[in-house]
Amino acid sequence: MKKFIDTPDTLLQTSLQGFAKAHADIVLFNPEPRFVYRNTRKTGKVALISGGGSGHEPLHSGFVGVGMLDAACPGQVFTSPTPDQMLAAAQAVDGGAGVLFIVKNYAGDVMNFEMAAEMLDLPNTSVLIDDDISLPKTHSIGRRGVAGTAIVEKIVGAAAENGADLAACKALGERVNQSTASMGVALTSCTVPALGHPTFAIADDEIEMGVGIHGERGRETVKLVSASEIVEQLAGHIFDELKPAAGQAVLLHVNGFGATPLIELHLIYELAWQYFSKRGLTIQRSLVGNFTTSLDMAGCSLTLTLLDEEMLSLWDAPVNTAALRWGC
Amino acid sequence: MKKFIDTPDTLLQTSLQGFAKAHADIVLFNPEPRFVYRNTRKTGKVALISGGGSGHEPLHSGFVGVGMLDAACPGQVFTSPTPDQMLAAAQAVDGGAGVLFIVKNYAGDVMNFEMAAEMLDLPNTSVLIDDDISLPKTHSIGRRGVAGTAIVEKIVGAAAENGADLAACKALGERVNQSTASMGVALTSCTVPALGHPTFAIADDEIEMGVGIHGERGRETVKLVSASEIVEQLAGHIFDELKPAAGQAVLLHVNGFGATPLIELHLIYELAWQYFSKRGLTIQRSLVGNFTTSLDMAGCSLTLTLLDEEMLSLWDAPVNTAALRWGC
Repeated sequence: MKKFIDTPDTLLQTSLQGFAKAHADIVLFNPEPRFVYRNTRKTGKVALISGGGSGHEPLHSGFVGVGMLDAACPGQVFTSPTPDQMLAAAQAVDGGAGVLFIVKNYAGDVMNFEMAAEMLDLPNTSVLIDDDISLPKTHSIGRRGVAGTAIVEKIVGAAAENGADLAACKALGERVNQSTASMGVALTSCTVPALGHPTFAIADDEIEMGVGIHGERGRETVKLVSASEIVEQLAGHIFDELKPAAGQAVLLHVNGFGATPLIELHLIYELAWQYFSKRGLTIQRSLVGNFTTSLDMAGCSLTLTLLDEEMLSLWDAPVNTAALRWGC
Repeated sequence: MKKFIDTPDTLLQTSLQGFAKAHADIVLFNPEPRFVYRNTRKTGKVALISGGGSGHEPLHSGFVGVGMLDAACPGQVFTSPTPDQMLAAAQAVDGGAGVLFIVKNYAGDVMNFEMAAEMLDLPNTSVLIDDDISLPKTHSIGRRGVAGTAIVEKIVGAAAENGADLAACKALGERVNQSTASMGVALTSCTVPALGHPTFAIADDEIEMGVGIHGERGRETVKLVSASEIVEQLAGHIFDELKPAAGQAVLLHVNGFGATPLIELHLIYELAWQYFSKRGLTIQRSLVGNFTTSLDMAGCSLTLTLLDEEMLSLWDAPVNTAALRWGC
């Protein structure tokens, strides 16, 4: 395994210390229990907390700041955080208007956020993200939360900043999630530091279609094809899922999994732009880059969000985080 | 070769089309001759133009915008742009106060920017970046320009935005360059699309110390060691080169080469922060992420810039580009 590490055990904690120092103008880091939170508090605002396994950076710590999350609870690499983290984070950032958890749909995350909600005696306090259309809706544990999470966090973050109450934030988050579909493709696997070798084997001429963000195998292993053919497939599945009306305004997000260069991500973006434009959609907003990664995996995902006026305006609202920053 | 491409020939142009669409609020793209430029012009301002081979994204196109570059001229992957690109870019963005080229020290770039300057009849119009300390100062073509380029572009960009004249911008750029030292390490090679295979071979237990950003071999191939030992070496060489006074204010930049996850880059940042802090430096500003990349190379570089009050203030000034954005 070739990585910049001292030991797998110290990687996360040391990395988070570095992250907090590099972004000391935005965040603070609580080492035990582990969470990252805003360095300024705002009373009377719904507090948004997310979290999940590490290895997806900048998700979620890079999305903590004005206009987005109040706190993020990072677990070990690809491992759910524990309820004491959410509990401590909630106590640190609760501004008196309630706490909303934004949770990607993985069994461990769901269970641990639910336990934290129970311990905090917070009813009905989470938005579940399940934007990955690689799995059928009927899958036993439902669909996974992937790159659409960042879009929910941005839009709900802006609403919370503007004073929306807990019920409105939750309803908005669920609406954004339902308006969002993602699908990913991997060219390589990724290597979990504690494991030391790639999670799955893949031939030099093969790719994994419909891959998640934890080094799971994809929906199917297929032969490497051109970027245009890959985009046709991903975009086609997304289009069929969302069934947008002609002229629909959308946000198009091309997300890199960590090891794919920007030159390729912008190529994918252009091809996806052409695909959706030809089908009558109006691409009003874009996000291209590595936002929801899978360690050192080469690959990318497409995410499409159907926008209404409110969502568009909230997307454009000021945000000041390590990974997304505008208008501040 | 596993990449998202249709053909190596169309990669750059299609990618730039996508880049311009994704950042249409900031840039325009001129396809022939090829350059990216701001979508707003400001008269009476020194125009800053950079460029070089592609494959280093977001450098330089991602640094075009208010507070940084006026235009960027991308060559093919790892290939110098041609003088007609700089000529057309200069004509497009010249605001009447002169044009300054910011040029990384590679033979092709230097020659082609010089030819463009001659064709434009612009004397004494470039800042040469040579921050890579991997090669001795006595190297035949001098030292290479690497990740310090972004820092020069940010600081001089702010000065130009504030109305500094051409001579002042050039002098400032040279001062920042002289105050900046970088050194990189690669865990893997990178694959140029037109070549189709990694540029150099490297064993599973080896790393390249003192590597550039074009898949050149490094200063030496050594055994893989811990992140702490790698940082000791890189930071030690940089410290010895710059010989900073105790208490010196610095900007610490950890730059990823493209395929190294943020969790590792922030670990490297923390270790470098500790190294320089122990030696009495005051790390006043930070930049961590993939800014000057080498396609899909796993690796990173450290860059240290000795800051004075003027440079610090210009670093903090508003910037609105695809890759760096704050205060706007």
